Amino acid sequence: MAIFDIIGIDSHLTDLLGTELEEVSRIFETQLASEFPPVNTLSVHVARYRGKMLRPILVLLSGLAVGRNGESSILSDEHRTVAVVAEMIHMATLVHDDVLDESPVRRNGATVNSLHGNEMAVMLGDYLISNAFHLCSTLGKPEVNLRLGKITNTLCEGEIVQLHHREDLELTEELYFTIVTRKTASLIGACCELGGLMSQADRATQIALRKFGVDVGIAFQITDDLLDLTADQGDVGKTTGRDLDMGKLTLPLIRALQHGDESSRRTITALVRDRCHAQLRERLQDEGWFDSAEMTAIDLVASARRHLDVLPENQATTTLHLLADAVVARKF
Amino acid sequence: MAIFDIIGIDSHLTDLLGTELEEVSRIFETQLASEFPPVNTLSVHVARYRGKMLRPILVLLSGLAVGRNGESSILSDEHRTVAVVAEMIHMATLVHDDVLDESPVRRNGATVNSLHGNEMAVMLGDYLISNAFHLCSTLGKPEVNLRLGKITNTLCEGEIVQLHHREDLELTEELYFTIVTRKTASLIGACCELGGLMSQADRATQIALRKFGVDVGIAFQITDDLLDLTADQGDVGKTTGRDLDMGKLTLPLIRALQHGDESSRRTITALVRDRCHAQLRERLQDEGWFDSAEMTAIDLVASARRHLDVLPENQATTTLHLLADAVVARKF
Repeated sequence: MAIFDIIGIDSHLTDLLGTELEEVSRIFETQLASEFPPVNTLSVHVARYRGKMLRPILVLLSGLAVGRNGESSILSDEHRTVAVVAEMIHMATLVHDDVLDESPVRRNGATVNSLHGNEMAVMLGDYLISNAFHLCSTLGKPEVNLRLGKITNTLCEGEIVQLHHREDLELTEELYFTIVTRKTASLIGACCELGGLMSQADRATQIALRKFGVDVGIAFQITDDLLDLTADQGDVGKTTGRDLDMGKLTLPLIRALQHGDESSRRTITALVRDRCHAQLRERLQDEGWFDSAEMTAIDLVASARRHLDVLPENQATTTLHLLADAVVARKF
Repeated sequence: MAIFDIIGIDSHLTDLLGTELEEVSRIFETQLASEFPPVNTLSVHVARYRGKMLRPILVLLSGLAVGRNGESSILSDEHRTVAVVAEMIHMATLVHDDVLDESPVRRNGATVNSLHGNEMAVMLGDYLISNAFHLCSTLGKPEVNLRLGKITNTLCEGEIVQLHHREDLELTEELYFTIVTRKTASLIGACCELGGLMSQADRATQIALRKFGVDVGIAFQITDDLLDLTADQGDVGKTTGRDLDMGKLTLPLIRALQHGDESSRRTITALVRDRCHAQLRERLQDEGWFDSAEMTAIDLVASARRHLDVLPENQATTTLHLLADAVVARKF
């Protein structure tokens, strides 16, 4: 599977969720299947650029972890359905982000928009969102629809606010965290919460799981942003340096601009305006802002893990701990 | 209100639905309200380019018509909610269509994409879709979510198939009707059906209402396509000739290509390829293909109206008849 090929977590996931994740993939494909060949051509293309399955994994692990023995029998079709819904919502945002960013490369494969045009990418994203809500409605649980609808509202707000603040060199750390929480962490938090809910966890445990997911989600996004600034394109599997090209300020840069002295701020502002990737990278590295952002991500993971204290000890709980660590340790 | 300013239908609508439509607008705005000013700026812009409110009107009229006396007391918050949900879904498709078509003008106002960029238009469409599903979930009726989810899947399929067949001069009339039914008529049919459902109409009446809506919807789209080919931009309030520019074949052209002789087909093909709007318009007019398409729309309206035979006689039923006529009689 090679999903989280770090610190041996892959074998844990295969043991616990191997067949479950295959089932999630099967439901995903069945839901998108259409009587119209052009729709299937697009859907097949999307299936090809699916990634780490972080969201389905979190739904399933959370669902498992709350059971006293972490037995896989606790997982139901409801868990698998929510897992697929979350992945579809996430995929829709990726596809639409590619329209936004005009990225030519994602996950080492051509993006939908570079293959079929922006119009097809917009429609495919819509098809994914629509299928996510349709599939979610098959559960017959209005409260799950309502929660996920709230989350996707939040997610769109995060994206709109982020777009609005492009090129805004005054962007505060506070607003950065607001954006990241909304556009990334809220869905990840909901995955964990709903995984618990579907296993009849008590409300306090559901909330702890959500807090775990939100902290992990913010750490995940900070790491993503760091990788965009620091990694080699070949390792990450998508175009790097895009945030800067699109005028999106991320944590190391925000801190450098907020905390540097007048002269340093002037220099960095010029590097940003002129899109001098290499020099900016060197500067942020030298001033310690990459380390600073990484420390924040590590602190968030520690905070996330403390929320897991309410869970029983079992293999799924152990894997949630490992997964949280892997989120910041990853190099892709 | 000046919604359907034809054959005196406007006063009927004001009498029957005046306060209801104001309430629909209020719910629409409340649902989209956000704590983030950039989100509200976008939402306000969308409210400004709202149109005829055909879908909310059909939900409400259908809801009224099935009651023995057509009393407005039969309308509930559920009708208004479904009316808003349908309008939001429709607005989302308009906003995303503008990205697809890169239209600079819609409803005599600047489109979202020309004001804020394609990225904002994509996100605003997503925000509308998400809010539509969220609002729908507040009903606590999974079957309504499920039906509307199915409809939006269908709608996306229609759009994708249409995009796939751009520039396809072999496009058959059959496939044109499949596309139009999916991308336009299915939602309009659902509006009528759900209006009846919310008023506890029996299943046969709900189905008759859906069939009415589907026929009206196809007629509406044929008329829209005709206006794009024949109308003046100032009258229609949006850029005309766009279908042709984007390689979208519509009914008069499909018929001309399918039924004309070899020489006529060659001439028309050349006019399409070279985007010779005026000459093509003249040719299709002379050969009678505009009249032919209009006749089909008129036949569909007649068929639609026959489905209303199951309804009790009341002012709402009368207005549904008038509305069906207005859909093809409109010049905008």
